[in-house]
Amino acid sequence: MSPVDPLTPPATPFTRYRATIEYDGTDYFGFQRQVPEQPTIQSTLEDALHQISGRHCPVTGSGRTDSGVHATGQVISFELAWKHGVGALQRALNANLPPDIAIHDCQIAPAGFHPRFSARRRKYAYLIYNHPQRSPLRRFRSWHVRRPLNLERMKAAAALLPGTHDFATFGSPPQGDNTVRELFQADWQQQAEFLKFTVQANAFLYRMVRSLVCSLKAVGDGSWTVTEFQEAFLAGDRQRAAGTAPAHGLYLISVDY
Amino acid sequence: MSPVDPLTPPATPFTRYRATIEYDGTDYFGFQRQVPEQPTIQSTLEDALHQISGRHCPVTGSGRTDSGVHATGQVISFELAWKHGVGALQRALNANLPPDIAIHDCQIAPAGFHPRFSARRRKYAYLIYNHPQRSPLRRFRSWHVRRPLNLERMKAAAALLPGTHDFATFGSPPQGDNTVRELFQADWQQQAEFLKFTVQANAFLYRMVRSLVCSLKAVGDGSWTVTEFQEAFLAGDRQRAAGTAPAHGLYLISVDY
Repeated sequence: MSPVDPLTPPATPFTRYRATIEYDGTDYFGFQRQVPEQPTIQSTLEDALHQISGRHCPVTGSGRTDSGVHATGQVISFELAWKHGVGALQRALNANLPPDIAIHDCQIAPAGFHPRFSARRRKYAYLIYNHPQRSPLRRFRSWHVRRPLNLERMKAAAALLPGTHDFATFGSPPQGDNTVRELFQADWQQQAEFLKFTVQANAFLYRMVRSLVCSLKAVGDGSWTVTEFQEAFLAGDRQRAAGTAPAHGLYLISVDY
Repeated sequence: MSPVDPLTPPATPFTRYRATIEYDGTDYFGFQRQVPEQPTIQSTLEDALHQISGRHCPVTGSGRTDSGVHATGQVISFELAWKHGVGALQRALNANLPPDIAIHDCQIAPAGFHPRFSARRRKYAYLIYNHPQRSPLRRFRSWHVRRPLNLERMKAAAALLPGTHDFATFGSPPQGDNTVRELFQADWQQQAEFLKFTVQANAFLYRMVRSLVCSLKAVGDGSWTVTEFQEAFLAGDRQRAAGTAPAHGLYLISVDY
């Protein structure tokens, strides 16, 4: 695969880099590498690194995002033998990436840095377009909900979430892990024509944000009372969530280290 | 083409309807019908009308928009033999339109209504994303300009535009028409992370908004002084415009009757 003999050591030593990236997840099968016919964010980044270095450089992310999920602040790392500066590296990568992925920041990683294991907090946002009519211009960026949502009730239910709790109702754990997470922030705001949910935790269960949003939306449209939301939350039973909100309203905003 | 014999008069009389539509222009060859292989907004609307009525119903718009241009308030009209109410007509059309076009309002047109000839004012908006780095999530909705733009200078130049003037520098007229237009509003605002240009006139020349935006951007990035902008404007010479801004930052916002 590589035009460079992988057994020949590079003239320049390998350095580990850390980068912050933005992507439009619409046309990808999520972050994590899949079969070659299914383009992912990871495989596309690895292709760009291969283009500039002639070698396969595995990319590690702070976490997986599902098919269709967007990011403005995903953090990745990779090792590369690169003899120029980080600015030139960022420009070279951006020149080899498609228009729906961009590198916003590129630095030499601190010693021992790992984008997933070193992460202390992750922040996600979710956008709901609450309007009786669908909007073509907003269709890949938000969840269109026709029934009027009561923002105050959604805020009241979201206020139950911060703290260290068992979030088993709202997601499944990675293999062998438990379902307790520490949640630092969970609130709703009106932002222009959207209802925006912002949530920050040390880590998230699989599909947790989309599951929280769907259950909070059930409170907003009157399907659930705030008390019913609380009971479902305390039950610690995955079957009690109201469902999973669509991927295209979800954004990985930032990762703190 | 039609499953209904066009010589048989419909059981219901023809009525002229007026509708307001939103569209994402990204995947269309503009508003106006072209060759069949090139989908346009007009041909897609006519296909939906054919689906619900079995007849070809020509659609008239308030004006053409170019390939890639969006609309939140394009106004159209068409004649249809429809025995149900306007709400049912709107739902039937929306159900037969693709996700990138939506009917937001549908009414029986007033007597003598013509979406182009009856229009008194048209309003457009143009979004510039002024940032050193490209943004994947904003790439189909705004023009990405890397060089820092001075909003105050762009406002000062835009303030020269309102009034009845010869806009020959900024566009070509439809066949046989002159280049004088009455402009009611032209201003720039910071809106979230975008610089937004709003312009309203009785009518626009071909490519006029995009040509104005490109010339105002030349003032913003320091290529032109406000005086140079004014001289180009007064010259009435199409060659003096700074260029044409990309289509994907432009939105037809509303049409007044």
